[in-house]
Amino acid sequence: MRGVVMHAPGDVRVEERADPKIVEPTDAVIRITASCICGSDLWPYRGLENGAWPQPMGHEYVGVVEEIGDEVSTVKVGDFVVGSFFASDNTCEICKAGYQSRCVHAVIVGAEIGTQAERARIPLADGTLVPVPGRPTDAQVRSLLAASDVLGTGWFAAVAAEAGPGKTVAVVGDGAVGLLAVLAAERLGADRIIAMSRHADRQALARTYGATDIVTERGDDGVAKIKELTGGLGAHSVVEAVGTQESMMQAIRSTRPGGHVGYVGVSHDVTLDGLELFFSGVHLHGGPAPVRRFLPELIDLIMSGEIDPGEVFDLTLPLEQAAQGYRAMDERRATKVLLTP
Amino acid sequence: MRGVVMHAPGDVRVEERADPKIVEPTDAVIRITASCICGSDLWPYRGLENGAWPQPMGHEYVGVVEEIGDEVSTVKVGDFVVGSFFASDNTCEICKAGYQSRCVHAVIVGAEIGTQAERARIPLADGTLVPVPGRPTDAQVRSLLAASDVLGTGWFAAVAAEAGPGKTVAVVGDGAVGLLAVLAAERLGADRIIAMSRHADRQALARTYGATDIVTERGDDGVAKIKELTGGLGAHSVVEAVGTQESMMQAIRSTRPGGHVGYVGVSHDVTLDGLELFFSGVHLHGGPAPVRRFLPELIDLIMSGEIDPGEVFDLTLPLEQAAQGYRAMDERRATKVLLTP
Repeated sequence: MRGVVMHAPGDVRVEERADPKIVEPTDAVIRITASCICGSDLWPYRGLENGAWPQPMGHEYVGVVEEIGDEVSTVKVGDFVVGSFFASDNTCEICKAGYQSRCVHAVIVGAEIGTQAERARIPLADGTLVPVPGRPTDAQVRSLLAASDVLGTGWFAAVAAEAGPGKTVAVVGDGAVGLLAVLAAERLGADRIIAMSRHADRQALARTYGATDIVTERGDDGVAKIKELTGGLGAHSVVEAVGTQESMMQAIRSTRPGGHVGYVGVSHDVTLDGLELFFSGVHLHGGPAPVRRFLPELIDLIMSGEIDPGEVFDLTLPLEQAAQGYRAMDERRATKVLLTP
Repeated sequence: MRGVVMHAPGDVRVEERADPKIVEPTDAVIRITASCICGSDLWPYRGLENGAWPQPMGHEYVGVVEEIGDEVSTVKVGDFVVGSFFASDNTCEICKAGYQSRCVHAVIVGAEIGTQAERARIPLADGTLVPVPGRPTDAQVRSLLAASDVLGTGWFAAVAAEAGPGKTVAVVGDGAVGLLAVLAAERLGADRIIAMSRHADRQALARTYGATDIVTERGDDGVAKIKELTGGLGAHSVVEAVGTQESMMQAIRSTRPGGHVGYVGVSHDVTLDGLELFFSGVHLHGGPAPVRRFLPELIDLIMSGEIDPGEVFDLTLPLEQAAQGYRAMDERRATKVLLTP
């Protein structure tokens, strides 16, 4: 089959990869209907994260089940399914507590599997894949693909930040995850949602998703602006969806004492000063989003037409042109690139 | 009046200080019935924290109201009252959310006031002081004094760690705060409480307060032991009550993904690696405890005889011998020293 392989920073190729097969009796093999390029794929692309080269790429996916192992019982051949970037048994104590991304049997779907491809082997299929009722339309496919990571991650961030009625929520980061955290905060009933963005197109989408205010300032100026908008106190809930030192401190400092920071940007080179954190009095929660926790609910919202997270995809390319997609995201010409095999 | 003043690290003197007076109409002046020496007083004593020398000492207190300002309405002359280490208006948005230690009008009762003395001016008396019904016995006075800081702080830590039914709670730190976090976890209904302690007398008190297990190992060995006791997963809830790099990492690493760390040890020279924190998946919450939030409930529990936090005081000295008390705590000959004017 054809699949995307990164050979070095900036060197993305589409080439022949071995066809996936059932290895464990709990596996499924799916034909990928759509996959996409993640902001986190840009870290190795930019040489900011070490990769074991060559590295199959991709961890977001929707598709149709082609084959299942002997022990798979909740998904069947022909099902249209959504999974996420950690395979999980969904039965262990950690999964049951809603942290499937840290399942005791978790398998990472990134470099090990690589879903920017025609097919993929998905481990722990029963615990990982959620069947979608019926056959989704193209627009629904895009939204379900968003649910696979960026929507699920933005949703978790908003939940971790305890967005809800009576709350002012600020979102640091206007990538796909940040934009969908805005959507999540709106669905969770937040009173006021401040999107921090300097890009007109992303500001517009943030408004569509429910942002009531836009702040263009960054860093300490951004913090000052959030304080100004919240009577000097800071927001109740702040989502961090970037993963840099600046964005993390911007999030913590924008939060009022006793407020909640939900952080989902993979923290690269971030160090937190214990004393500043101590006196901030905030709640801090985040990490790799347990998307599986939210998938059934998100699939319902998408299939019933209540949310349209697929709008974050502003460039669609055939899989063979994946390298162009990486370039477009790296150069910020695209927010999120969808790949069709 | 007489009061404790620290002139330099290790140099604690009891000397004449100006008698406190009403300055603001919201002030009260109280005659101190009992005060004590805090683990945090040892930081400047040990030269690990800069002080503006000379520095009046003490921020824990119970006493009798002697004088009130014109705008004070909820406490009256003659009331026996308990306050805490931040004066707060208890009416602002932050106070109403339960974070009185970060009140928008907060006044710190440490160096500015100094309650290791015969009397003290307490700002924002209505919001800060909680009257105790009737006249407490000597044993109750000790327990109420514990409520002023170490009990309130340990209680907040256990709440921040979400200790409760069905949970295994681990407590890092066997000082007065750690011991009282054990008591709090027990009252909050935790199933299992693991006290981390290497001192026989503190282990015994931890058992009295509800600890079901004792772990003597520290650092990574301590983490391994907690994992061993929790099926490899880590505790649901971990209290950090020390404030060093080692204790903070011990707490975070002892917590299962999705679990809660409540940290109340003032984080000195602590830095947290963003990536490790990200992948830990824990909730982190702490800071200066909003003791005021818990005082009414704690006073009830003490006056009804349901809890006896005063047992943490293992040395009582007259105020004039405060220097001996500091030495005893510094040399770990005492867990907590009570001072009687």
